[in-house]
Amino acid sequence: MAGSAALDLVIRGGTVVDRSGTYAADVGVVGERIACVGRGLRGRRELDAHGAYVLPGAIDGHVHIRTERRESVYDDTFATGSVAAAFGGVTTFIDQIQLEPGLGLTLRGGLERRLLEAEGQCVVDYSFHLNPREPRRDLLEEIPALAAAGYPSIKLFMAYEGYRLHDDALLVAMQQVARAGGLAIVHAENMDVIAELERQAAAEGRTGRHHLLEARPALMEGEATHRALAIARLAGCRVLVYHVTARDGVEELERARRAGATAYGEACLHYLLLDASLVADPLVGSAFEISPPLREAHHRAALWDGLARGALDVVSTDHGPRRLVDRGDGTRVPPPGTSGLEVRLPLMHEHGVRAGRLTLERWVDVCCTRPAEVFGLPTKGRVLPGYDADLVVFDPERTVTLAHAALHSNVDHATYEGMTVRGYPVATVCRGAVVVADGALEVEPGYGRPAPRGWR
Amino acid sequence: MAGSAALDLVIRGGTVVDRSGTYAADVGVVGERIACVGRGLRGRRELDAHGAYVLPGAIDGHVHIRTERRESVYDDTFATGSVAAAFGGVTTFIDQIQLEPGLGLTLRGGLERRLLEAEGQCVVDYSFHLNPREPRRDLLEEIPALAAAGYPSIKLFMAYEGYRLHDDALLVAMQQVARAGGLAIVHAENMDVIAELERQAAAEGRTGRHHLLEARPALMEGEATHRALAIARLAGCRVLVYHVTARDGVEELERARRAGATAYGEACLHYLLLDASLVADPLVGSAFEISPPLREAHHRAALWDGLARGALDVVSTDHGPRRLVDRGDGTRVPPPGTSGLEVRLPLMHEHGVRAGRLTLERWVDVCCTRPAEVFGLPTKGRVLPGYDADLVVFDPERTVTLAHAALHSNVDHATYEGMTVRGYPVATVCRGAVVVADGALEVEPGYGRPAPRGWR
Amino acid sequence: MAGSAALDLVIRGGTVVDRSGTYAADVGVVGERIACVGRGLRGRRELDAHGAYVLPGAIDGHVHIRTERRESVYDDTFATGSVAAAFGGVTTFIDQIQLEPGLGLTLRGGLERRLLEAEGQCVVDYSFHLNPREPRRDLLEEIPALAAAGYPSIKLFMAYEGYRLHDDALLVAMQQVARAGGLAIVHAENMDVIAELERQAAAEGRTGRHHLLEARPALMEGEATHRALAIARLAGCRVLVYHVTARDGVEELERARRAGATAYGEACLHYLLLDASLVADPLVGSAFEISPPLREAHHRAALWDGLARGALDVVSTDHGPRRLVDRGDGTRVPPPGTSGLEVRLPLMHEHGVRAGRLTLERWVDVCCTRPAEVFGLPTKGRVLPGYDADLVVFDPERTVTLAHAALHSNVDHATYEGMTVRGYPVATVCRGAVVVADGALEVEPGYGRPAPRGWR
Amino acid sequence: MAGSAALDLVIRGGTVVDRSGTYAADVGVVGERIACVGRGLRGRRELDAHGAYVLPGAIDGHVHIRTERRESVYDDTFATGSVAAAFGGVTTFIDQIQLEPGLGLTLRGGLERRLLEAEGQCVVDYSFHLNPREPRRDLLEEIPALAAAGYPSIKLFMAYEGYRLHDDALLVAMQQVARAGGLAIVHAENMDVIAELERQAAAEGRTGRHHLLEARPALMEGEATHRALAIARLAGCRVLVYHVTARDGVEELERARRAGATAYGEACLHYLLLDASLVADPLVGSAFEISPPLREAHHRAALWDGLARGALDVVSTDHGPRRLVDRGDGTRVPPPGTSGLEVRLPLMHEHGVRAGRLTLERWVDVCCTRPAEVFGLPTKGRVLPGYDADLVVFDPERTVTLAHAALHSNVDHATYEGMTVRGYPVATVCRGAVVVADGALEVEPGYGRPAPRGWR
Repeated sequence: MAGSAALDLVIRGGTVVDRSGTYAADVGVVGERIACVGRGLRGRRELDAHGAYVLPGAIDGHVHIRTERRESVYDDTFATGSVAAAFGGVTTFIDQIQLEPGLGLTLRGGLERRLLEAEGQCVVDYSFHLNPREPRRDLLEEIPALAAAGYPSIKLFMAYEGYRLHDDALLVAMQQVARAGGLAIVHAENMDVIAELERQAAAEGRTGRHHLLEARPALMEGEATHRALAIARLAGCRVLVYHVTARDGVEELERARRAGATAYGEACLHYLLLDASLVADPLVGSAFEISPPLREAHHRAALWDGLARGALDVVSTDHGPRRLVDRGDGTRVPPPGTSGLEVRLPLMHEHGVRAGRLTLERWVDVCCTRPAEVFGLPTKGRVLPGYDADLVVFDPERTVTLAHAALHSNVDHATYEGMTVRGYPVATVCRGAVVVADGALEVEPGYGRPAPRGWR
Repeated sequence: MAGSAALDLVIRGGTVVDRSGTYAADVGVVGERIACVGRGLRGRRELDAHGAYVLPGAIDGHVHIRTERRESVYDDTFATGSVAAAFGGVTTFIDQIQLEPGLGLTLRGGLERRLLEAEGQCVVDYSFHLNPREPRRDLLEEIPALAAAGYPSIKLFMAYEGYRLHDDALLVAMQQVARAGGLAIVHAENMDVIAELERQAAAEGRTGRHHLLEARPALMEGEATHRALAIARLAGCRVLVYHVTARDGVEELERARRAGATAYGEACLHYLLLDASLVADPLVGSAFEISPPLREAHHRAALWDGLARGALDVVSTDHGPRRLVDRGDGTRVPPPGTSGLEVRLPLMHEHGVRAGRLTLERWVDVCCTRPAEVFGLPTKGRVLPGYDADLVVFDPERTVTLAHAALHSNVDHATYEGMTVRGYPVATVCRGAVVVADGALEVEPGYGRPAPRGWR
Repeated sequence: MAGSAALDLVIRGGTVVDRSGTYAADVGVVGERIACVGRGLRGRRELDAHGAYVLPGAIDGHVHIRTERRESVYDDTFATGSVAAAFGGVTTFIDQIQLEPGLGLTLRGGLERRLLEAEGQCVVDYSFHLNPREPRRDLLEEIPALAAAGYPSIKLFMAYEGYRLHDDALLVAMQQVARAGGLAIVHAENMDVIAELERQAAAEGRTGRHHLLEARPALMEGEATHRALAIARLAGCRVLVYHVTARDGVEELERARRAGATAYGEACLHYLLLDASLVADPLVGSAFEISPPLREAHHRAALWDGLARGALDVVSTDHGPRRLVDRGDGTRVPPPGTSGLEVRLPLMHEHGVRAGRLTLERWVDVCCTRPAEVFGLPTKGRVLPGYDADLVVFDPERTVTLAHAALHSNVDHATYEGMTVRGYPVATVCRGAVVVADGALEVEPGYGRPAPRGWR
Repeated sequence: MAGSAALDLVIRGGTVVDRSGTYAADVGVVGERIACVGRGLRGRRELDAHGAYVLPGAIDGHVHIRTERRESVYDDTFATGSVAAAFGGVTTFIDQIQLEPGLGLTLRGGLERRLLEAEGQCVVDYSFHLNPREPRRDLLEEIPALAAAGYPSIKLFMAYEGYRLHDDALLVAMQQVARAGGLAIVHAENMDVIAELERQAAAEGRTGRHHLLEARPALMEGEATHRALAIARLAGCRVLVYHVTARDGVEELERARRAGATAYGEACLHYLLLDASLVADPLVGSAFEISPPLREAHHRAALWDGLARGALDVVSTDHGPRRLVDRGDGTRVPPPGTSGLEVRLPLMHEHGVRAGRLTLERWVDVCCTRPAEVFGLPTKGRVLPGYDADLVVFDPERTVTLAHAALHSNVDHATYEGMTVRGYPVATVCRGAVVVADGALEVEPGYGRPAPRGWR
């Protein structure tokens, strides 16, 4: 390669795992970009990847960093959250700007505030979904301008009284998204029906959290998903259904696509791994008072099958870690929320690849490559020249038992505490910089920056 | 038949057409019931049916007789409407009690009022669907008692601001219907989306009635149908979707049934016969400013196919005749509404049987037998001993050109004016009484009475 | 009913069960036909049916009476078989003319011989399917003439070396059937594949009859069914698949119908009731060395579901009773073949209706009415004026434990020996004559005659 | 890249088109392999690809080079055919060893003969499918050994009397293929039915070649495809259906895959581009007396749709060029066979990509990458380090009107004569050697060699 520029960094001797193939190659980096993928490369700095996989940096498109919520806060800051991401092989995460309702805020204002909060804090790249959390039409009109500014995705709630959007507002939002060439993301539940079922349950004294599932039947998740997809088809907009938890939702996605929709589906780590019965656990169950709820084994099987055959597109975490709270009797229990940002890649390897549910290539696809396409991160997600040098060295033989003390989120317990995985990320590179290697963080807070967004 | 009771009436020499077969037989009546079906019967009175079909009396489960509506009235009274029915071979029609909203009325009160209005007026039998037309929960709680009193069907609107039910009320209504073992009937349109599309059309100046269809896409009729059926499945109730107009609705019905729902679909005469373009007609188009709207030919084809294969169950008319009104310039135009009660049987014979779209048996099924099952009229709909002697003699060779002057509704024009049909009802028997024969009415107003309701 | 002819026979006080409804009525007979169905009928002779069902006479379209077969004979004669039929409520059975191959026989000759054999022997009506049992083209050319003579159905074997038809002959046969407006009946198995799998099994020493199923996978029954249906679609002929035993076959039937085929499916009693494991039974297993083989529970469930929803049309027996033979050591075992002719109606009532798998109406449909339509018996199968007075009085409370000594086939054991059923036929009427009542046979051999065939 | 080996060849400045993405990069080659893909590479030799696409070398898995056939020969030799391939961007083609039937030849012998014929003749790489062309069981037993020797694919004919395999032999062949981990390739037509339909057509005087299609209905292609896939599922073998021409075949492939089969489908260039009516053309129609036949537009549309969504996997040519022959009157007409080897890549670009039917990436996939997977060429088909340096520079702006004089097959006419395409291959590299550049051939006959085969 005489005559070519010297390489700043080379990941040497590994096996590159791409969504459509696996091959031995070194990866060479110049500046922030991958410069070449080849054999026998040498660079100023080298990371040894012999015996390991080299993946595109993982992308988590569904993450909650501490936000202004009256009733509660998530406990990861941009600093702690981004470090957890880095140690977990995640080189880009997408948080949300969640406006505090009732204050007359604007999306642009909310975005600026979140950008300020993140600035100087992160060790990997990040972005934000817009999230009006209030059914104000004027907020929806901000969509095109903010999309043009690089924030083309918006979270739309069909659930949660107060900030849910009725179908007319949903249509308007999706029309704006279509106009902007952006991405509508829906939380698809039928709020009216859930609320009624909850009232009935309360009236009949079925009130413990082990009754949670009763008011949220899979049938109605299917209904809300169908409705969201129908409205998206009407608007002609690209749409992602967040946290599909049931067979019913998977079927609606496939049906909408056959009818021509550009529709994506997200599986979340906890819906893939955890059973509905966990919500009844006296110690940890409170963490799972979430909506949509954890479901039964046959729904989990449908999610895994859906991931394997492409009916679902991406795996995210809905990471929203919370520290234990005293329930008044000295016992400390977890508030609702799960922490998965740091452990998605190894857990999906363990329960996907090693369990025979996903090929190695599909594992990389759902964690790294497809999220770049779905969320509109055109410089991310591939190990190819010209793409951002976001890379993970993943040692398939490294065995780790998960424990919060060894993880990096700002929490005092871990959702997957005690689970053992074989296969773990051992080095993370973001835009050419070695962020983590040999168990040590190598960049300063603030290295990470907002990732460019859009679709080609 | 020595020793058996003498027959009061015999329909002699005809061909009985039953949903599952056609055969030559006389039909003998004792009192109000069919006593026997056989050969060589003689009775005190005899109607000659040689060369003609003998059918069970037709049933129209979707009829509007003059009601208290602030903005408008339908123009058939129980007297004129029931005569039109009789001449059209309809021996039972089902009207609705439509509460005037905002007055704190009860369903029972409304029912009693309607029963009073009908009393002494009708020449054939009748019943009523409950219709709250107001989203009051207390009205829904009346369902079980009124079902027990013989009025087990309720019309639930998902459309029309003011009396639409949101999904939570829809669920409660359907739960009450399930409890009562009754029938939920839905008008399935997505009101929020329609309203938004209308606002957008208005804002953009697309306001003529030829724009009507734009705000009511078939895709959203499919959505509302899917939603109604999902909620009915959740409630475990029997459900009928009124006036399916689009392929999308037909598909949802079939899908819900495959998933185990007890779901029925209704086609209405005008959606089967008339094209969307008619709404733009300067003279008669105003009659078709209705919702759901008339649709394009491919949707009509889907309705006919659905009827033929059982995806749709019944054909009704949504009969709601209106006299012409002056539009201010001396021109008289029809207000929205169609009149079909008297002409359904011959028009379905012409465009169904003679056009090769339906077998003779299926024609009888969708007009006479299946409505008895769907609407819960256990004594009606079959030419078999023990059933009500509701019978029609239909001459397949009689050719008639439809004209309002020769019809019996209280209107000064006819929806299907000028259409020619070959095949027409020539005699109508209701509970053993000859109501119409040789073009003459033979019973007094008040002969007709409320039909018993329920499912076995 | 003054003035009408006197009734020769009345079935009084029963509940008529028709495929599409159930109602209380007497059934009056004049001569050989049903004259009327009504209330309060009186006749010269009367059968009391209070508390009982009155059904159309059952029809068994798949029966083997003793035939000229080199290697074996069935043991019912027309005399014994027709008596068994009569006691089981079967008023018409259809046997086959099975030419002995290799002798240059004609179908017409074979038919004449069978007619001679049956003449003067039968107590109920009968017909024959043509069955060439030899792939001679000249035999296929006889189809139109024999169809015109009243024998419009032909059995076509895709299995059994020697008399199987290859696809070209199958096409020619079906084209002739289409020309004749008749019915092609196929035994659908892939003989080449079965033979190869048997060779492989033999070569590997898997030779006991418990290996029977291995060479006849459901997948290949599906294949042969698909092929037969494709060729029938090409020929444009009406087709019935005999003894569907697997989910795969049911699916192919439904698919072909959606594609426009006029295709029917038959379930046989033993495939509905008996498990594959029975073939390994040392004492009775030899009776089940049949092809297609008994299958596993999930296939049986698919057959019942298929019957219930109309994917399968009729239930027959493939009745082919054989007396026990000495296997050389003094032990007497049954040769292959089952005897079901007499017990189909009560066993289908027990395991269909009482087990909740079929409605009362569907039970009558698959045993009595639909066979008349599928096999082309236009005067049979309905309790309506003008139809043959073929009637069964079925007492739903009569409890019987099946035992060959009390049954009427010419066998020394019974396939369903020891099974208890609640519900049993107590009287059988064929063309107006009481054939069986109060446990006694009332007609002479020879009363039965060939039934007219054809489709309207 | 200091310290790394020097690059022998660099394709500079182009846009790499990969099945799952498109990006700007140079491709560097060391020896026969791709060494790296990156920016700013320099090499001892450089090909300028500015403004052009860089693709993996195209693979044509269905090619006929001159073979021993009594009745006719194809006219390309390995020399002429491989040059045509090279100029068309094809770096690997797969011919067949087609044993002359009736001579007792072995597959190994046939293979050795073909290898000898090809040796020293080819300018690009090649391989062979086994093709017994005779239903001898002993030939099928050779499969495992020859698969182990690098020839793991076998062509199995369901059509053509003389060398068709009946279903038992098909099963045995597929079992051997399963044992060998190979690939069964089927020509799926129902020979019995075709032969019968031809006999009937002949008997009725429908004999011109414009009647060709009548004997080969799409329905029966569907049948044969279904049967082949069922047997493959039974055998557990990987299967490819050659030249799918009809919607029916596409549907069977999708259905088999949903049922778990590893099944692939091939589209051929002429079935995608040419209409059934062409066979009636007096001058060129004789070239299209082929089986399966060219079909109607709606089938072609189904093939394109199938390719786009992955229902079909690869596009081949069934290249079998023939020189014109005198038909006795001095007129020279083409014998059956088409020549497509050299023009597949530009024609698929023109009618696939430019016509909006395929994305750029899917075009590369069906012509280059997916064939490597389907046919088992593990070193071919990707532009990634370690893969064979088989590369094509394709200029999307180069406009060419196809004419046999400018093409390289040994024929005196061209199947697609006169068609104009925009986009054409301008350089071809095979295992690191520039085979074609600037319109000139740069390697000697014999450079090409048998490609290693197998699946990972």
